[in-house]
Amino acid sequence: MIDQFQNTLSSIKGVDMSLSGAVQAHLDDLTKPKGSLGRLEEIVMKYALARGTDHPVLKKKKVFCFAADHGVAAEGVSAFPAEVTPQMVYNMLHGGAAINALASHAGADLDVVDMGVNHDFDEHPALRRHKVRKGSANMAKGPAMTMEETLQAVMVGVALAREAHAEGYDLLATGEMGIANTTPATALYASLLDLPVEMITGRGTGIDDVTLGRKISVIKQALEVNAGQLSTPLEKLAALGGFEIAGICGLVLGAASVGLPVVVDGFISSAGAVAALKMSCGVSDYLFFSHLSREQGHKTIMNRLGARPILDLDLRLGEGTGAALAMQVIEASVRVYDEMATFSSANVSDKSV
Amino acid sequence: MIDQFQNTLSSIKGVDMSLSGAVQAHLDDLTKPKGSLGRLEEIVMKYALARGTDHPVLKKKKVFCFAADHGVAAEGVSAFPAEVTPQMVYNMLHGGAAINALASHAGADLDVVDMGVNHDFDEHPALRRHKVRKGSANMAKGPAMTMEETLQAVMVGVALAREAHAEGYDLLATGEMGIANTTPATALYASLLDLPVEMITGRGTGIDDVTLGRKISVIKQALEVNAGQLSTPLEKLAALGGFEIAGICGLVLGAASVGLPVVVDGFISSAGAVAALKMSCGVSDYLFFSHLSREQGHKTIMNRLGARPILDLDLRLGEGTGAALAMQVIEASVRVYDEMATFSSANVSDKSV
Repeated sequence: MIDQFQNTLSSIKGVDMSLSGAVQAHLDDLTKPKGSLGRLEEIVMKYALARGTDHPVLKKKKVFCFAADHGVAAEGVSAFPAEVTPQMVYNMLHGGAAINALASHAGADLDVVDMGVNHDFDEHPALRRHKVRKGSANMAKGPAMTMEETLQAVMVGVALAREAHAEGYDLLATGEMGIANTTPATALYASLLDLPVEMITGRGTGIDDVTLGRKISVIKQALEVNAGQLSTPLEKLAALGGFEIAGICGLVLGAASVGLPVVVDGFISSAGAVAALKMSCGVSDYLFFSHLSREQGHKTIMNRLGARPILDLDLRLGEGTGAALAMQVIEASVRVYDEMATFSSANVSDKSV
Repeated sequence: MIDQFQNTLSSIKGVDMSLSGAVQAHLDDLTKPKGSLGRLEEIVMKYALARGTDHPVLKKKKVFCFAADHGVAAEGVSAFPAEVTPQMVYNMLHGGAAINALASHAGADLDVVDMGVNHDFDEHPALRRHKVRKGSANMAKGPAMTMEETLQAVMVGVALAREAHAEGYDLLATGEMGIANTTPATALYASLLDLPVEMITGRGTGIDDVTLGRKISVIKQALEVNAGQLSTPLEKLAALGGFEIAGICGLVLGAASVGLPVVVDGFISSAGAVAALKMSCGVSDYLFFSHLSREQGHKTIMNRLGARPILDLDLRLGEGTGAALAMQVIEASVRVYDEMATFSSANVSDKSV
């Protein structure tokens, strides 16, 4: 398994920047003042480079919503009970969650991926059954996942990205569902980015001051208990992550390895993406951070990465909701690039009075 | 004409806030942590109140792109020559402008409205011919429009909004095309909001330092020359506005008068909206500011109004491009509200462990 993982990492190449001249020339020839479409122009440049063409297409989109349970929920760090994880998976399968409405609005397919929910699901066309275990272990008492489990979860994400690529998808997005998962995500950030726990620990789905204090203690305890096995990004992911976060990390790695851009949702998804970035910096050419989460700490983390998310809508729901919304902006940028007339073709006078 | 205008103003009513309880109760019953959809929840609340129902529908959308020429262009305040206004109108009619791609992406119809372009257009299905005059007069030498012309232009916008309402449109958006029109827009802001000209004058489509200095002088001169006729918002619009800005002002007033929400594009469109707000503060219940323009001054203006635009994508193109993008976010918020399951219907445990 470690060989497959290493092979994935070594197949990730940075983009061919020599294409940027052709893309920029086309952008500057479109009937608009140069640069006047602002971030849409930056976005389509990044998208085109990621796809390796100055004639990029964006049709097929898919959101992967990874679900898992967390042993650390036993520490009482969430406002919702753990049984909500499978309940929300069912809600997604029945079309009733926010991500169903928003993926549909974006024209994106939605796959729900059971990475480690503490429940036995029957087959369902929208459910991908890749359960590694029925929930991670309590990271406050030891590693959340074994190295073998972690690699298995990461390679599920890699395989899903490659399958989507083979099926002709142009753009992928990440999402997640897992009660208590802001806790492992925060621990991961603290370890991967060397940030103080207090600065980046927030209220998740809505915890009170007492629970917030407990959450901070639990995260510090997890960092201490696992201190001996936090040398590499993969070890950090194993000790402090969760199955859905490892799946997201794998999806990002897999997408980058086949040249597919991937839109990262909010606080939890970004943790999986940061783990992937630490494993292979080439990943950054394929990553779009979709939105600035309302969850405390996300702004600090985005600043640390030098990332400016596409949207800022005070979302703190997860599931892929922000990523689905940002997909529409990315598609808008590609449509403008593909569909607009050029100065010469439209007989419009270029600048200079 | 003044009677029709006054009647429009007096038919604008603030929304019925008593509906907000029912809307909030439904939002809080959806299968997500309370408030976790952030600004999407604020947006659907505003939309529902504007429509006067806690079961809001959002299907039919239309962008109105108002076009006109400006006498003040003769002062050399723009980076593009005035003949670009009709050229870009043709480009829109042929489907080659940015707004064509973005309105289509948003699923919105697009009407281009000739309010005062210095060119004779033939009939075209997407062109609304409401030319008041072939361009405004040079505001640096006297009033840009007569009072009669101003009322005529405003009432065109009112009539278009009412027609759209009768045709079953749910959401309107403003856009504009008019070489040199950041100059009258800036003069209007300075007068309507009492802001210093230097603070809010920007580079429009991309002028150099010398031209920027000239633009500031021209705006100050216009304010001075017209100082005797700047008592009311309508007088300010006449002296410093343009035909497309007056049309936008009218569309906003007309939409508010029939309870239709309207999405305002960037720097120029906001000037029409601010004029409308100054004529009737009830308008604010129906207004969505779509995006923070890259044009210098827009942030100051939004702050002055206490408005937080939906998007911040460094756009500075106009045409309705930012408004079309924001329409998708507004529609997303309505879809979430309409389509998500409730806690009871989905068998999901509500908060409290």
